[in-house]
Amino acid sequence: MRTALVIGTGLIGTSVALALVRRGVTVHLADHHPEHVRTAAALGAGTEEPPEGPVDLVVVAAPPAQVAAVLGDALRRGAGRGYLDVASVKGGPRRALEAQGLDLTAYIGTHPMSGRERSGPLAASADLFEGRPWVLTPTRDTDTEVLNLALELVSHCAAVPVVMDADAHDRAVALVSHMPHLVSSLVAARLEHAEETAVRLCGQGIRDVTRIAASDPAMWIDILSANPGPVADLLTDVSADLDETVRALRALQSADEAKRQGGADGVRDVLRRGNAGQVRVPGKHGSAPRAYEVVAVLIDDQPGQLARIFADAGLAGVNIEDVRIEHATGQQAGLVQLMVEPKAVGVLSGALRERGWAVRQ
Amino acid sequence: MRTALVIGTGLIGTSVALALVRRGVTVHLADHHPEHVRTAAALGAGTEEPPEGPVDLVVVAAPPAQVAAVLGDALRRGAGRGYLDVASVKGGPRRALEAQGLDLTAYIGTHPMSGRERSGPLAASADLFEGRPWVLTPTRDTDTEVLNLALELVSHCAAVPVVMDADAHDRAVALVSHMPHLVSSLVAARLEHAEETAVRLCGQGIRDVTRIAASDPAMWIDILSANPGPVADLLTDVSADLDETVRALRALQSADEAKRQGGADGVRDVLRRGNAGQVRVPGKHGSAPRAYEVVAVLIDDQPGQLARIFADAGLAGVNIEDVRIEHATGQQAGLVQLMVEPKAVGVLSGALRERGWAVRQ
Repeated sequence: MRTALVIGTGLIGTSVALALVRRGVTVHLADHHPEHVRTAAALGAGTEEPPEGPVDLVVVAAPPAQVAAVLGDALRRGAGRGYLDVASVKGGPRRALEAQGLDLTAYIGTHPMSGRERSGPLAASADLFEGRPWVLTPTRDTDTEVLNLALELVSHCAAVPVVMDADAHDRAVALVSHMPHLVSSLVAARLEHAEETAVRLCGQGIRDVTRIAASDPAMWIDILSANPGPVADLLTDVSADLDETVRALRALQSADEAKRQGGADGVRDVLRRGNAGQVRVPGKHGSAPRAYEVVAVLIDDQPGQLARIFADAGLAGVNIEDVRIEHATGQQAGLVQLMVEPKAVGVLSGALRERGWAVRQ
Repeated sequence: MRTALVIGTGLIGTSVALALVRRGVTVHLADHHPEHVRTAAALGAGTEEPPEGPVDLVVVAAPPAQVAAVLGDALRRGAGRGYLDVASVKGGPRRALEAQGLDLTAYIGTHPMSGRERSGPLAASADLFEGRPWVLTPTRDTDTEVLNLALELVSHCAAVPVVMDADAHDRAVALVSHMPHLVSSLVAARLEHAEETAVRLCGQGIRDVTRIAASDPAMWIDILSANPGPVADLLTDVSADLDETVRALRALQSADEAKRQGGADGVRDVLRRGNAGQVRVPGKHGSAPRAYEVVAVLIDDQPGQLARIFADAGLAGVNIEDVRIEHATGQQAGLVQLMVEPKAVGVLSGALRERGWAVRQ
């Protein structure tokens, strides 16, 4: 790949462009907001000049609802040898392109699974996709040359290619992203009018469950509008489980011992299925979560405390696999939970205690 | 308070005993598992010898279902001047005690909001409750002397006392803990039989939403069995919202523009209410979450990398407020997100870049 045209210079498009430029590809930038193109070009993501002829790869990084129109236009004017989009849903854009009666052998739908806490070209980075899955949805008709251009792009972005059917992709992201997002919002929504005394009792559990409910509604309306069917199907399944759970809890209130037992069995079933599903969530390095042990250390809130803990752990030769900081309610103090390999617990606890830390293991 | 009897020497009971011993209180330990008492005594949590007469405070740290029986027994034999329990629900035990026809002026129901990832006396620590809310549920009939004994205990444990009505407490923990726990299990349950390709696409969002679904079902059956009514009520509310959300998503699939608009409005409403609730979840130090900015740094997975980052941040005089580590799928690399005060972003990014870190801001 020697030349590319990136249409849409928001976070994703500009990040792709930066990664391509880093690998020596000549990148042309386009966006219907000229100031976005200028910003992206100023960041070194490519040139504002239009290409003189067809480029090797056209990358459409427009919002889901606009992808089919922008791609159709590029295809009709023969802007490139290959075409891909990076929208977070894949079935709808493909069907909309098919409805335009276009030859889609030079097109491949893709989706980089990167975090998107921020938006716009200023948040872009050539490293945005590093190590993340990047879904490719070729069909039997996709040109091998175009598939290879897409794989080259994914490689330049240091992402991990995953090949899927477009509709399977949409069901998958509904499962691992869109459905959990709405459920998180529904749990958080229960707090909107809750009494302050109750809200004070929130701990790390609800904090984690509701974290993603803080996201920008406008972006999520776009995403959900492009994938309503699979998300509605999954929420319907969740709703059926939820109603079953309510019935089990009501049975726990029964005066009848057998009914109470049935209720307990129902609740246990939900909890066990939750265990079985949770253990499948990939942890570190995409593998099943390893069983780390926690070494907890009390700190007060002065600059440098965490630095000293990590430095002391480093001196002890222990690798901290993960960190969680729990802050105390109403106090300038917190509990740092250091996740380490089980065999490192003794070494780390000993080393930290020796250096005067309040270790709670 | 000079003497106490702790009945039930699991994680909570032993931790309370350790905190009291540290403050010079003579603690007697009892448990229907003699080996637990021996372990707790060996840890320095008190003596296995029974008290010679009534103690100042009897602390019952038995599972919710057994609290009323154990407390009733202690009250009838006049084991102390004051009595409290630490079970995670408060309405049921009180009603069970009232049903025994006992004078409850010397009793106060309490609930320390500590994390309980582990159990048993070996996991106990005098610091377990430090900075955490500790709910007290006095009634109009509770002796002031007994309330003061409870407040003294909470102070010895370095916890933050919060006074609530027993039933309000049960509704509050249903809201901030029990309901979110079951919802997390229901989301995780959807992954149990999902295709491996879909599960590979999991990111930090679903990882956070399902984290608490990994908990021990046996302990949660106990907790939920003691509070089924308020939890069922809340899940019923969530279910109604969920069904409304499904209807909105289905409307988004409509051929009718007005219906689609109505669907988008419905989804936006859920997301906005989620925003409004999430912002109330207390962050650091129990206050509303402050707006931290993220400085992201790419690391590979060698011991000492985190230590060096924190040390470098410390040298730059920047306090890291929170940390999140995102690990890349299938790669021995990760992204460390350092949360800092907005004004510290420039200083930290500059300092880290200067020292050769791959900062992605």
